[in-house]
Amino acid sequence: MSKSRTRTSKPKTERRAQPKAIVLPPARVIIEHVDPEIDAGRFPIKRVVGESVTVEADIYAEGHDVLDGVLLYRHESESDWHESRLEPLVNDRWRALFVVTELGRYHYSLEAWIDYFLTWRRDLRKRIDAGQDVTVELLRGAQYVEAAIERAQSTDANLLRTVAMTMHSKESVREATELVLGDEVLRVMRDAADRSAAVRYERELAVTVNRKKARFSTWYEMFPRSTSDSPGQHGTFADCEKRLPYLAEMGFDILYLPPIHPIGTTNRKGANNAVECRSDDPGSPWAIGSSDGGHKSVHPELGTLDDFRHLVDAAESYGIDIALDIAFQCSPDHPYVKEHPEWFIQRPDGTIQYAENPPKKYEDIYPINFDTPAWEGLWAELRDIFEFWIQHGVRIFRVDNPHTKPFSFWEWLIGEIRKSYPDVIFLSEAFTRPKIMYQLAKLGFDQSYTYFAWRNTRHELREYATELTQTKVREFFGSNFWPNTPDILTEYMQWGGRPAFQIRHALAATLSSNYGIYGPAYELSVNEPLAPGREDYLNSEKYEIKHWNLDAPESLRPFIGRINQIRNENPALHSNWHLDFHDTDNDQILCYSKRTDDFSNIILVFVVLDCFHPHSGWSNLNLDALGIEPDQTFQAHDLMTGARYMWQGSHNFISLHPSDQPAHIFRLRRRVRSERDFEYFL
Amino acid sequence: MSKSRTRTSKPKTERRAQPKAIVLPPARVIIEHVDPEIDAGRFPIKRVVGESVTVEADIYAEGHDVLDGVLLYRHESESDWHESRLEPLVNDRWRALFVVTELGRYHYSLEAWIDYFLTWRRDLRKRIDAGQDVTVELLRGAQYVEAAIERAQSTDANLLRTVAMTMHSKESVREATELVLGDEVLRVMRDAADRSAAVRYERELAVTVNRKKARFSTWYEMFPRSTSDSPGQHGTFADCEKRLPYLAEMGFDILYLPPIHPIGTTNRKGANNAVECRSDDPGSPWAIGSSDGGHKSVHPELGTLDDFRHLVDAAESYGIDIALDIAFQCSPDHPYVKEHPEWFIQRPDGTIQYAENPPKKYEDIYPINFDTPAWEGLWAELRDIFEFWIQHGVRIFRVDNPHTKPFSFWEWLIGEIRKSYPDVIFLSEAFTRPKIMYQLAKLGFDQSYTYFAWRNTRHELREYATELTQTKVREFFGSNFWPNTPDILTEYMQWGGRPAFQIRHALAATLSSNYGIYGPAYELSVNEPLAPGREDYLNSEKYEIKHWNLDAPESLRPFIGRINQIRNENPALHSNWHLDFHDTDNDQILCYSKRTDDFSNIILVFVVLDCFHPHSGWSNLNLDALGIEPDQTFQAHDLMTGARYMWQGSHNFISLHPSDQPAHIFRLRRRVRSERDFEYFL
Repeated sequence: MSKSRTRTSKPKTERRAQPKAIVLPPARVIIEHVDPEIDAGRFPIKRVVGESVTVEADIYAEGHDVLDGVLLYRHESESDWHESRLEPLVNDRWRALFVVTELGRYHYSLEAWIDYFLTWRRDLRKRIDAGQDVTVELLRGAQYVEAAIERAQSTDANLLRTVAMTMHSKESVREATELVLGDEVLRVMRDAADRSAAVRYERELAVTVNRKKARFSTWYEMFPRSTSDSPGQHGTFADCEKRLPYLAEMGFDILYLPPIHPIGTTNRKGANNAVECRSDDPGSPWAIGSSDGGHKSVHPELGTLDDFRHLVDAAESYGIDIALDIAFQCSPDHPYVKEHPEWFIQRPDGTIQYAENPPKKYEDIYPINFDTPAWEGLWAELRDIFEFWIQHGVRIFRVDNPHTKPFSFWEWLIGEIRKSYPDVIFLSEAFTRPKIMYQLAKLGFDQSYTYFAWRNTRHELREYATELTQTKVREFFGSNFWPNTPDILTEYMQWGGRPAFQIRHALAATLSSNYGIYGPAYELSVNEPLAPGREDYLNSEKYEIKHWNLDAPESLRPFIGRINQIRNENPALHSNWHLDFHDTDNDQILCYSKRTDDFSNIILVFVVLDCFHPHSGWSNLNLDALGIEPDQTFQAHDLMTGARYMWQGSHNFISLHPSDQPAHIFRLRRRVRSERDFEYFL
Repeated sequence: MSKSRTRTSKPKTERRAQPKAIVLPPARVIIEHVDPEIDAGRFPIKRVVGESVTVEADIYAEGHDVLDGVLLYRHESESDWHESRLEPLVNDRWRALFVVTELGRYHYSLEAWIDYFLTWRRDLRKRIDAGQDVTVELLRGAQYVEAAIERAQSTDANLLRTVAMTMHSKESVREATELVLGDEVLRVMRDAADRSAAVRYERELAVTVNRKKARFSTWYEMFPRSTSDSPGQHGTFADCEKRLPYLAEMGFDILYLPPIHPIGTTNRKGANNAVECRSDDPGSPWAIGSSDGGHKSVHPELGTLDDFRHLVDAAESYGIDIALDIAFQCSPDHPYVKEHPEWFIQRPDGTIQYAENPPKKYEDIYPINFDTPAWEGLWAELRDIFEFWIQHGVRIFRVDNPHTKPFSFWEWLIGEIRKSYPDVIFLSEAFTRPKIMYQLAKLGFDQSYTYFAWRNTRHELREYATELTQTKVREFFGSNFWPNTPDILTEYMQWGGRPAFQIRHALAATLSSNYGIYGPAYELSVNEPLAPGREDYLNSEKYEIKHWNLDAPESLRPFIGRINQIRNENPALHSNWHLDFHDTDNDQILCYSKRTDDFSNIILVFVVLDCFHPHSGWSNLNLDALGIEPDQTFQAHDLMTGARYMWQGSHNFISLHPSDQPAHIFRLRRRVRSERDFEYFL
């Protein structure tokens, strides 16, 4: 499919005619509408190691000549292009693919040319079919063959010499036509094609390649200060370590910690975000910085930097990455406030501007002024914060509110980090308008929070997941589905009880290859809001130390663990490339499937969306999407219960119960034994 | 809506962060996904004089600041930009428009900026609504007002001085807030906005503007040699003049003549494309060139160049343009063959390659070799052909088979011609694959033949007309619907008799603002094919002189004349911008509407597609597209018969008959008199 080839001279990309200035007529081939290509090549697409990039383009020239072409690609560390032959589809659309195997950046482009030999060969066949004399035609064709000799490999060149000789003889017309119409000469002539007038696509496009966890990850957010075995006591990194087996058993592979830095005391918020706090209130971890240090320090009650490093290493032994929360804002006590007052906004009365979203005020936080004339020093320092934690073993960052910092800052910062650490994963917490959310992804964030938490009806879920995974958005936007966060307890969760937590978990874990929960509030189905109409938790862990009973009998721990096990065992769930929705005749039953590129693993999911009533209905499966023939019997193996059903066709009966069986997660096995498997049928 | 404004300094378009190289932080506003924009600005969009260009873009910045912006536009003859204020829609989408009033090329772009005053003003209102003390805030706001004084017009500056003074006084907080929240200060501050950090969209886009006939034209193709009153005699330009009243009465405004040049004798084709011809066969007008001259000469039997000029002038007095056929190919007798053998392809046996599409051969034609090393001289000569006929009064060209000549040639040629003659109209006869057809339009052809002739069912017509007129294709592709040509007599026309000619005419004339017929074969319903399965005419006029009986009682002359009159009288039919299809419950009845931008003219058409049976059914009108309320009574005035119907709602009864009444062409009048029109109701 592909071969390495050095191209020294760059072919024409110029398409505008300039008869006065150039001697050769302008190139004739048009290459356009390349896909994938984001905003005219302004942004790279994204892949993870082992994935393929399928590239399509419209390629054509005027008239009826035969074209040929290649997809060009190379890793940034290589100077020569690899080539993959383009195959024509229909309607002047061409396609080829390549597989990315290395971290970092790949480049790709396309090259196409008119092949006069192929054109001549096609017409020769038509002439022969029409019974025309082709003697003179063979002389014309011999010119192409002779010209190719010097471009061909030595053994191929020998063949071409023989062919040309045969074409010149009037005695061997029949032999010559058989030769030039044969497959071997076709192969040799295509390999030795005259590419002197080839057209290179005007842009070089890019792919950034990250490790597999950028595509397939299972996040668990946990407040380290709430991990002590003793109620009321401040948890430590050592306590976090003890929690690792619990998380590993449930199948999580990223443990995300809210900010672990010293917490300010000035204007510290009390329980439930109270403006006044009691002396023993621990404050919000997002009010970063105190006399104990800032973004490069750890809160003393959690332990030391060494303790943190120990936690990182211990987690690694479970296959768990520690993800840190990077929130670029400062408590009034942060060292930066004194050291770099120029990084903050001064009000006309001389005070520093605290954060606000009028009329709301966040008096415990100073925002950073990215427009400061001293921005260059500021940016460099913020980059150093990332590098500091990378030095301490962290490779995954959840970035707080990136949409309130300049786009150009993120593009620069992520680019800088990737130069040395192409395996770092950035999760954008940009709960903002859709175009800003997408822009951050284009600029380099690997993953992003989404509006999933507020998509609850069948129509909403179907429409949204389709937008994210089946439009060009998927080329740059890595969806991460979170049913809850410390800030988001949706009405569906507040009202739906424990079944709501099961249903939303099943959806997040199977619709999106990246998902996460904020626990242990999740597995314990904590659902009391601060007040009616609010999505904040009552007595939120953001302002208090909690003690959770992980062994509570109602815990969803086994349910979550089982679904994560199914995720881990089934490659279909490791990406979103092939997510297809299927109809059912009951609006409260959502049905969708995922599969691998080669159909070797096919998962079909049914989830009931109503938290209160059992529902049954009939599916109307899109069998094409499942790779199943209408008359083919197949097995639906429910990975949740172990039950196996024998099905045929689109219409199959489904029954679900919000608390007992909120979801079927079927693995479809297309091969079912029949009498034809017996020896006497063979 | 717009004002002229000189912008001397060009704002930033750079979006990539380069902290090392620049001192100011990178610009914060993103402008992207501009529409209309063809292939990242590679090609201009098209308009005709008097039309508007509505431009939309995604415009946003990080965070929550308020943005403002303008659409910039200028005619190529102007150096300063005009500005039209952008209005926000939803989801960070903005829109503005401008009207093109001059021939030639316009440029447009966009500029947007963060308006810190507007941001401050929005937040001030929130603070006041929340009962907060805003004394310090007013001091902050006064800085914006003071800074604006020097940018404002003198009277505005005086106002701002007063406002700033008021904002500084603690005694006048209430007065100051009322002032800065008022409309007058808003207007002044927006006009004097700080645009020093404005972002200019990275591309300047273009519009080519032609005269109205490029959008709205009614073509009639006629062989001049078949216009003599005496059967068997060769028609002349003078005979063509006599035909003008006939054409004008039918409402045509372009008379298109097949090539009028000397016809070659070598390998001349006989009747029905016979390889052997009789001595009196006139030959195909597309076999151009003889000892009498080539592309800059006229066939002697038609008359002289002066006669031709006389015809052009006579036609102009009827509002009719003469369109010439430009076919870049030569008979073996063309003077070029001797003068410029380097412009043709030599075969290995020394002969010149005639045209072929293997296994088909066109021995009476030599194709021109655009790849010749002497291409510069060739291209210049071909341009001179256009200029020659422009000097002789021709402004419309129908270009034969442009898809077999290089794209770059056409882009260059059309650009050259437009420099001096922006009112020239080019019609592309590119019956080829869709992407090539579209590419030619992008390169500059104003109009193009389409696949209309082969779109006959309701689904086909609806889908195709929607693609051409309601997708971005419409920005560059000027559809021209031809139900027949001398080469195309479709099966629908062969089988459907006279009703087929009525139906296809009604469709072409009302679906597309540009359409044409090949007559008099059309109005006489000539429908005998060369052979079953062929789309060529039997005894085609391409190879014979015809004598047509224009007064035949079965002629469609009155039908065609009536529909063209309706076209001319109703502006809704002068463009395709607002073509909407409506459902009916009968697949053989196609329903669609067209309207002007302002709904002042609304045409609703029903056409029966079955040539053999009367059909009736019920409409299901999309009332929104018609600007009609569901409870609103409206009048449907049938412009074909004069009948008037009073309708209400979507569902209305329709009855059509293929021969007697194949189409309703209603003008909808939304105002119907009622009792409320009487004086005693006023």
